[in-house]
Amino acid sequence: MEYMITVMKNAFYAQSGGVTSVINCSAYGLISKFKKDFSTANIYASKNGIVGLLEDELYDLSKTKKPLENLLEMPGGAFGSCRFKLPDLDDEKFYNDLFQRLDKLFIGYFFYNGGNDSADTCLKVAKAADKFGYDLKAIAVPKTIDNDLAVTDNCPGFGSVAKYVATSAKEASLDIRSMCKTSTKVFVLEVMGRHAGWIAASGELANTTNDTFVHKILLPERKFNKEKFLAGVEADVSKHGYSVIVASEGLKDQNGELYAATKETDSFGHSQLGGLAPKIASLITDELGFKNHWSVADYLQRSARHISSSTDIEQAIAVGKAAVSLAAEGKSGVMPVIKRLSNKPYRWEISTGDLKDIANEEKVLPENFISEDGFRITGDGQDYLRPLISGESFPKFADGVPIYENIDLHLREI
Amino acid sequence: MEYMITVMKNAFYAQSGGVTSVINCSAYGLISKFKKDFSTANIYASKNGIVGLLEDELYDLSKTKKPLENLLEMPGGAFGSCRFKLPDLDDEKFYNDLFQRLDKLFIGYFFYNGGNDSADTCLKVAKAADKFGYDLKAIAVPKTIDNDLAVTDNCPGFGSVAKYVATSAKEASLDIRSMCKTSTKVFVLEVMGRHAGWIAASGELANTTNDTFVHKILLPERKFNKEKFLAGVEADVSKHGYSVIVASEGLKDQNGELYAATKETDSFGHSQLGGLAPKIASLITDELGFKNHWSVADYLQRSARHISSSTDIEQAIAVGKAAVSLAAEGKSGVMPVIKRLSNKPYRWEISTGDLKDIANEEKVLPENFISEDGFRITGDGQDYLRPLISGESFPKFADGVPIYENIDLHLREI
Repeated sequence: MEYMITVMKNAFYAQSGGVTSVINCSAYGLISKFKKDFSTANIYASKNGIVGLLEDELYDLSKTKKPLENLLEMPGGAFGSCRFKLPDLDDEKFYNDLFQRLDKLFIGYFFYNGGNDSADTCLKVAKAADKFGYDLKAIAVPKTIDNDLAVTDNCPGFGSVAKYVATSAKEASLDIRSMCKTSTKVFVLEVMGRHAGWIAASGELANTTNDTFVHKILLPERKFNKEKFLAGVEADVSKHGYSVIVASEGLKDQNGELYAATKETDSFGHSQLGGLAPKIASLITDELGFKNHWSVADYLQRSARHISSSTDIEQAIAVGKAAVSLAAEGKSGVMPVIKRLSNKPYRWEISTGDLKDIANEEKVLPENFISEDGFRITGDGQDYLRPLISGESFPKFADGVPIYENIDLHLREI
Repeated sequence: MEYMITVMKNAFYAQSGGVTSVINCSAYGLISKFKKDFSTANIYASKNGIVGLLEDELYDLSKTKKPLENLLEMPGGAFGSCRFKLPDLDDEKFYNDLFQRLDKLFIGYFFYNGGNDSADTCLKVAKAADKFGYDLKAIAVPKTIDNDLAVTDNCPGFGSVAKYVATSAKEASLDIRSMCKTSTKVFVLEVMGRHAGWIAASGELANTTNDTFVHKILLPERKFNKEKFLAGVEADVSKHGYSVIVASEGLKDQNGELYAATKETDSFGHSQLGGLAPKIASLITDELGFKNHWSVADYLQRSARHISSSTDIEQAIAVGKAAVSLAAEGKSGVMPVIKRLSNKPYRWEISTGDLKDIANEEKVLPENFISEDGFRITGDGQDYLRPLISGESFPKFADGVPIYENIDLHLREI
């Protein structure tokens, strides 16, 4: 009598790039499903993205005692993230070292949870495995608040930021509406979005059919027309008494240069942004004489788990689980993507995207989502955006603040 | 047989100064109790603070059909607020005009819902009524996110901002904690507070006994010691990998001047602040070389009804109701105040303060609330602050955003 023994390979999971309020929901989906479907294998989570692998810092998740469900309520990256660009494929030394590290742990599945740059990293790993003959399935898990990944209808992480922006803009608008008679008449909220205006566009969701809370949206998809903008703000104040502006950090001037650029750049050569709101606010005060207030949401918007969208959470879990299914099917160089089936009612399913169509691509707002004057979002755009912010999933609180308890993490002993 | 007829006088209610996420809860408490206790009288709400009275724009609340309970969930000032300084008492013409306007509407109760400046306004009205012989009870209702009113233990509006700041700082801290290995190492959150550091101090509430999320707090009560601060931030990054700083807009330099002053001033002569966070962040990057992110919460913090403290809401309602009780007792020149009975368990009651002890006074953080190095809040301070952010009271959502429906408002026909 003979037995055939199939030995299940272990898995590597890492979080990469800017984190979101629901990236740990993807971690939850992925880890819990891997533990179930690959019950005899182990899964290692890398500390600080791929850097953990290179520095021998991997969390052994078989040792974790606290419930994985903790991950469902915790913003940020539970295992740490990184901004790290992999070298080109001709760097044989680097990739041989990488695969030796994976081989030592009998790792056959490489899960990389991130955005455009991370899809590029994952694709490089998939290609390098082919090139250097290492048996590895490299699968990306989508995550980015920017919502700018190609192929997928939307990106986990975005819906929660959109909900934060729409809610915050509505709240601030009610505030300035009370004050505008004798005081502040203009409020500028700066939000993230380097090249794509998805986040700024979500300011439109503050508005209802009966009432306008956000009057202007400044998108990177439109070169900033100062005169038209100022005339519009003046008209808002004249009509409503005040004007609320949601502005994307990536706004460009007439030459296509960042309107509020700074000198610093990150390891991918991206400029570090911030400071657009005070610039726009000063412009308005200087030119029109209106008292202004402004806010820069920055990290607050992308870490605000207390107001995450439950649709977003559901999808973040789903892509994590789907990555494990793709691994089981032996796929590599792919990413689970969200496919929209209908707007009303909102229905979606998970499908598969090819990383070569996704890596380093950026999806900007389609033309039909932007109003003719360039400062608002059309009905088509609203129909696309609205379902993504739907549903509340408040975290547990203790002593007045969300608990946000991580799982216990244990570095693999070397 | 003889009948004695007591004719109940009408009431005037106005919201004044910077609004909060719960000022409408005080309006709810006050209006609902007045309607109940003074059932034959009417209450008028002034459009845009006292300006509505001077411009004949008063809402006749007897015509309101929608439930007053709507006010419990709506941030901003439901009736509009103002920044408007009353003239001195020797301006007989102004006050005679004011009292004629009140007299025409048979108003015997003047309720003014605001902070320090509004207490001053209310006190002037009380004194002027005495001086010019007008039968009017002028009662202030406390409201200020700054928590700097004298006599009262705390101010309605503050607890909700404190909850917002503690929650947001914790969330952003989890974000930067994920990123600090290869990217951002310093996060600066700028919060409100001109002269008193109560709001910045609430950043301390992000911390737990086991974990530090906020490492430095910059208070207006301490002159900014650049060298000590930078050394502290360097130590944080060296120990934890990152540093989170909550900074009060009112931070002063060694000469006692605002560290980030702008030139604009409001009608009370206060400087318009903002822009401290980028200044602190740049200082750190320039001196220590750490990549930074920064956020300016501005109006978002004080309008964030979606994360209001239920203790704060309860107290905001209570001071509104208490103002009506004081009116019924015939008091004038007073304000209902919150009196703390114990910290653990937190118990409080409403008491009465004299406006002459409150108007234009500012209560700063007591010395025993500030740590020795000046950058943290002591256990005593935490014991004071913690109960104020306790409890959640999420608003109703529709289509992914809070509804925030106002009551219907009908201007009195002239």
